[in-house]
This record gives sequence, C-alpha cells and structure tokens, in this order.
Amino acid sequence: MFLSLYLKRAENCVVGICLFFDDRYVREFVIENDYELILANLKRINRLLDSRSCVSSDMLGWVDCVDYKVDEKIKIILEKIKSEADIVFVLGIGGSYLGAKMAIDFLKSPFYNFKCKPKILFLGNSVNAEPILDAFEISKDKNVWVIVVSKSGSTLEVCASLGLVEEFMLKKYGSKSSEKIIAITGENGNLRSRASAKKWEIFTIPLGVGGRFSVLSVAGLIPIGVSGANIEEILCGARVACKDFGYCSFDYNDCLKYAARRICLHKKGYSVEILASFDVRMGSFCEWWKQLFGESEGKNGKGIFPASAMFSADLHSLGQFIQQGSKILFETMIVSEFPAKDVVVPEDNSLISNKSFHYINSKIFEGTLEAHFEGKVPCMVLKFKNFSEFELGYLIFFFEKACALSALALEVNPFDQPGVENYKRAVKCRL
Amino acid sequence: MFLSLYLKRAENCVVGICLFFDDRYVREFVIENDYELILANLKRINRLLDSRSCVSSDMLGWVDCVDYKVDEKIKIILEKIKSEADIVFVLGIGGSYLGAKMAIDFLKSPFYNFKCKPKILFLGNSVNAEPILDAFEISKDKNVWVIVVSKSGSTLEVCASLGLVEEFMLKKYGSKSSEKIIAITGENGNLRSRASAKKWEIFTIPLGVGGRFSVLSVAGLIPIGVSGANIEEILCGARVACKDFGYCSFDYNDCLKYAARRICLHKKGYSVEILASFDVRMGSFCEWWKQLFGESEGKNGKGIFPASAMFSADLHSLGQFIQQGSKILFETMIVSEFPAKDVVVPEDNSLISNKSFHYINSKIFEGTLEAHFEGKVPCMVLKFKNFSEFELGYLIFFFEKACALSALALEVNPFDQPGVENYKRAVKCRL
Repeated sequence: MFLSLYLKRAENCVVGICLFFDDRYVREFVIENDYELILANLKRINRLLDSRSCVSSDMLGWVDCVDYKVDEKIKIILEKIKSEADIVFVLGIGGSYLGAKMAIDFLKSPFYNFKCKPKILFLGNSVNAEPILDAFEISKDKNVWVIVVSKSGSTLEVCASLGLVEEFMLKKYGSKSSEKIIAITGENGNLRSRASAKKWEIFTIPLGVGGRFSVLSVAGLIPIGVSGANIEEILCGARVACKDFGYCSFDYNDCLKYAARRICLHKKGYSVEILASFDVRMGSFCEWWKQLFGESEGKNGKGIFPASAMFSADLHSLGQFIQQGSKILFETMIVSEFPAKDVVVPEDNSLISNKSFHYINSKIFEGTLEAHFEGKVPCMVLKFKNFSEFELGYLIFFFEKACALSALALEVNPFDQPGVENYKRAVKCRL
Repeated sequence: MFLSLYLKRAENCVVGICLFFDDRYVREFVIENDYELILANLKRINRLLDSRSCVSSDMLGWVDCVDYKVDEKIKIILEKIKSEADIVFVLGIGGSYLGAKMAIDFLKSPFYNFKCKPKILFLGNSVNAEPILDAFEISKDKNVWVIVVSKSGSTLEVCASLGLVEEFMLKKYGSKSSEKIIAITGENGNLRSRASAKKWEIFTIPLGVGGRFSVLSVAGLIPIGVSGANIEEILCGARVACKDFGYCSFDYNDCLKYAARRICLHKKGYSVEILASFDVRMGSFCEWWKQLFGESEGKNGKGIFPASAMFSADLHSLGQFIQQGSKILFETMIVSEFPAKDVVVPEDNSLISNKSFHYINSKIFEGTLEAHFEGKVPCMVLKFKNFSEFELGYLIFFFEKACALSALALEVNPFDQPGVENYKRAVKCRL
C-alpha cells in the first residue's frame, strides 16, 4: 500500500529510497488553516536555521556533522578494537550513550551481545553498583577495551564509574591499560586533562555539538563503529536528509510537515506524543528520540511530553489507554517496509497458517492504525525502507531537524538544558 | 532520614518492615479538603472491594492469589526445570510476561541472563522473527524447556511463536519434546485443548484473575520460580500487604492515600504520572506498572497516562522536561533503602572520593526530589527496604490494590480491556 507512494529523491548516494510520511490520519483533528500558518512559520524558521541565524546558532554543529569524513585515526582504532576486544565498556550518560545504543540495536539487533563480538556494555549511566560489578565479573577472563564519552568530563555518574573501571583495567593490564582506554571529549575539561595525563587516545567532539545531537559525531560514531556497522553509510544517509530537508525543499519537506503537524496538535491541546514502533530493533531508538525531543522542547513550561510504545507488546499494555483513555495524546507510528529477519508460521489451519511474520506484523500495523484512528487518536506514519545504515542516518537527521524546528516554533531554545543543572546543584550541595 | 519513619506493621511473617509512603511533597498542589473527600470515597470503595461488592467482583481472583499454597506439582516441575534446562523460553504477551519479567529483574538483576542458569528468554510478545530466530540460534546446543502462558490460548502473537517453538522442540527432542513443554492457561480455551492433545503438563490460571493482575498466580509464579526466586516469600509479602491495606486499616492505609493523592492530582488537571526509580532493577517493574494502571484506568475517555523514568540515566533525558516543561505531570518516586550491591569510588580528590555508590545514589534521589519539587512538580515517594521476595510481594499487592481503587474512584471498570478488542478485530479482518 505505502511502497508505491515512496518518492525517490536521493542523489549523490548509493541508496536512494527515503522516508515516507503520511499525515492523512491526523488531518481531521486540526484546522487546516492553523496548520498552514504553522507550516509557513516553520518554513521561515527553517531558512533561519539553514542560514545560521536562529537562536543559539553556535550550537548547530550537528548539521556540520553530516559532512564529517571518517579519518584514518578512527579507522585504525576501530580495526584495533574489533580485532582485539572481547568486551568493550562504553561509559557515558544521556546523549553520550543513547545515540550509540540506539544505532547498534537498530543496525545489529537488541540481542547483539548474545551473539556478536565484541560485546558492548553501556556503563556509567547510573550510580548503581550492580551493572558495573556484573560487567567486571563477566569480563574477568576476557580482553577488555574502554571508551569513555563525556563532553565536559565532570558528569557525576560517569566519574563515579570511570574511577572503578580504571582500577579494574590497571589490575588487569598494569601500565599497558592506558593503551586500551580511549576518551571522546570536548576541546577542554576534566576528561581531556585526565586522558592526556594518562596517555589515553583522545577524540574530540566538535564545538557546537550538544549531547543529544551528538550521535553523528565521534561520540556516537566510534562506539557504533565498534559493532562493525558502516559509519560512513550512516553519514551518507544523513547527508541526503540534510539536503532533502533544507529550506529549498518546500513541496516535499516531510520534516517541516511532521514538525508542523505536531505543533498544531499541541496547540489544539494534545500534550503527549507516543512514538510507536512495531519492531524490537526500535526500542532504543524510542529512548533516543525521547531524550532528543523532551530535553529540547521541555522548558519555559512548554513542550509535548514524549512517550513510546513497542507494538505489538504494548498493544496488550498501553494499547487500551491509547484506544479509549484520556484524549490527551497523539501517535507517531514508525515502521520499516522490510524486516531484519523473517520466518513463516507452520501450517496449523489457523488464520496465520503459512503466513510470514512480517506479513502478519504489517497487518497488525494497519489494524492498529485503523483502530486508533477510529478511536479518535490522531496518528502520523513514518515509513522507512529497512534497517540499514543509510536509512538510519536519514532518520537521525530527520528527527534532529524536526526537533530543532519544533522547539524553535514553540519559541524555546532547542539546544540548552538549563533544568538539568537544578538537580545537579541540589545533589552537589549534599555530597 | 526516612528509615526512622518506617512503621513496623507486619505480623505473622518472617520479615516485617514494609513500605513507607511520603506525600509531603504533593500537599501544596492539591486542596486538602478535596483530598479528604476523595479519601473518604476511597475508604467506601475499599470496603466494597473487600466485601466483593464492587463492579466486576468476579474478577477479584488476584486478591485470593495471596492465599495460594505452592503445591507439590509446582515444586516438582520447578526442580526439574532448574536442574535440566540451560535455557527456558517463556511465551506470553502483556500480563502473561510483564509480571514474571519484572519479578526476575527485581529479585535477580536485569543482567540475570548474562550470569545465571537457566537463561530465561521471553518470546511471543511480538510478531518479529528476530527474537525467536536468535533464540533458536543461541539454543541449538543447549537443553531447552518451554513455558507457554496464555489464558485464552488464542492470542495472535503467542500462537504465531508457539507453532515455531513446537517445531523447534520436535526437531530437537522428537516425541520427548512434549515432556519439556508446559502450558499455563485458563480452565478452557485453545491452549488447554492443544496442551491436552499433546500431553504437555498443564497449570491452571484461576477464574477471576485477569492478565495484568496475574503475577501472583501460576502465570507469574512458575516462570519466577525457574529463576530460583523463593515464590512462597513473594506470596508472604503479598499476604501482609493484603492485611495492611484492607478496609479495617484506616489510619495507616498508604494504599488508599496513594490512590487518593493521584486521583486528586488528576482532577486538578495533571494528566501524566511518572513512576521514577533510581535502580536498574526497577526498569521492568515500571513496564509492569504501566500496563497495570494504563489498561485498568484508560477507558471511557478517562485515566492518568502512565510513564516511567529510570534515574539517574533519565535525569539526562526526560529530566529537563520534568523540571521545566509543560506542567502536566506528577511523579511517584520509588526507591530502595538498601541496594542490591554496593561499591566504593576509589580515592580521587573529588566530591565523591571514597563514597559508596549507594550513598551517592541516595543523594541523587534527595537532590532530584528537591529540584523537581522546587520546579513545581508534585512528587510522592514510596520507599521499600530491599530487593527481597517479601518486599516484592508487598509492592505488587500495594500497586494492584491502589490501581483497582483508583479506577473504581474514576468510575471505570478496573478489570476489563474492551479497547484491546478493537485492534484485534481490525487485524483479524485483514488476515
């Protein structure tokens, strides 16, 4: 049904089928004139953003990331880690791990660690002893590398874990441990000095790249590359998206349309957006998306609360609320045209006998869309082709830009997070 | 600070320190008189519920579950599985897996599968081929058992997976495969006939126990028992809670107070409740809680949207929105007095030098509570003692009862889920 509507717009790139955005199931919930006004405003904002004239335009480093060339230093370290390591600890919190985790789950599978090498363990995103002690336990006879990601290097959670990880590596490798730790950090700060003093290899997160917008910088690309994913293809997809959603693309700019629809729904009183997916590979993607939108929009008493649902599991959980509960939410369904894997149900005389999982799942998607729409829930659909690097890069840029545009339309700064300081201050004065 | 306020109320049971509920940080957001009226109504409803006179009182089987005696048949099968199996597939969706998964993560760790035997893989909760094919891949040289949980036996997602799993087991074990598959199902239905025909061992989910209220029935207890957890202790905790939150306990009935506060906040216009936890063991607990509350309350255009946050990870994600975004939400923070494991930060001249992870984490909790409260977010706190079976049973019953009471106060039926049929119908007519 949808495939025929795909538009081939990509140029200068190997793969060329991009995102399909469907807003037919949302139109009756908004006044078309309101939508057109918001869209017109977003076109103006998009021009400002592209010409670096919006608020905090020094924080548009994420746009420049798409032109990043993966250099020899990165290629060498990735080859070294992939050939040597059984297990890699990636230390980071917030944007310093959500992007990499999302990409690995999307490209390789959320069960990556059960079947692939090196295992990638994300640590330092809590101050719980259990994850880190368990990681040490399962790593004791293994070859371990460490990647620590922190722009400032002063984040409490990462610092608490880094001390223990250093001690663990020192016990395991002695003075050679410094050859197996790499730091990904900003131009200045604690982590940079610590890494220099200890002779760890350092990779620099460019200026103007905030945490939640950092997945296409070294902060995301290096951990993603460790999984064996082709990071150049991810950048290629993002580059095409950057072109597609630039201010020149008026007629087919789905990124503007998505941002305009959601802002329009918000102004009509909808306060929660659910990103709903139909594939287990999308679970971490939703977590990344929640940070991106929640942290960018949620300030000055504004913002759409970002939530997520994993269908069909959550059709037997949040599904009831979505269908018949408080009318405070709208849904954005994100679906892949082709699955990562497929299998056929054995003959059993039932409705699903001899049908493929993907066929059944696509009917679950269509049935859910119909049921929720009939239940008066505004629904948008984003369809991408498959779980490839190119598509991932395209999706990342789509959402980054849609997020920046949405926040600017709400007249908040998409690139700061002043509220995060409140809890940090309140914690520090207690320590 | 909080420990001194704990009330020792448990009787007839080995462990005796229960939940501590703190509503001081929510009082200024509600009118005390409104709260008192709602509380009075909830006391009335609690009496109706306890005397089986509320709506759908035939669905109060979950209350009777607390008196369940773990019989020999269960003990024998658990011993057999634990001694024989390397891997157990648990097939189920919604309430047929969320409760068991929550309990295993809470009692054993979310990293259970990396270090314990038998591995427990939850399948059949999506129609994605990848989880199931990956499960077959990692199980090929292993001893596998299967537990399929479905009250009706006709749920699409479970049926799709069960056919494949049966085929896998038949290839692996031939006619002996039927000795390694057990069915947990209702008095009647497709799964029961299928299991009887194939001579699988059958355990019966009692009448009146709905999916999301089934964790203390065989549906939850058997998979939980496979992990080595003491299921009798879980029931013991639930039994104490059942007594503590009965209609006779007026003065200290925290369950009523929690329900009353949330309904009061909802009536003041708060539409989202975030269950926020500070320990990785609570991640699946939040998912279980979201189904329990979302599916029970979300009907007739009513209900509080249930969301969750895992701190401190999400302090660097949703934290910004909670602190400064739209004022549509309130928080229920659930914290453990003692951690599952602890470790001390090595000496490093920083604020956290030589401090234990749990000490730092407890300061993160206190700082977050202060910051969010000062950011005008109504906050409630639920504190439990530790990650033990007794505490888990106590918490489960606390939330089950609070949920039933809340839904009844909203004048919706807590025990049905009519909206779930809509998607099922729309899917079926497409197959």
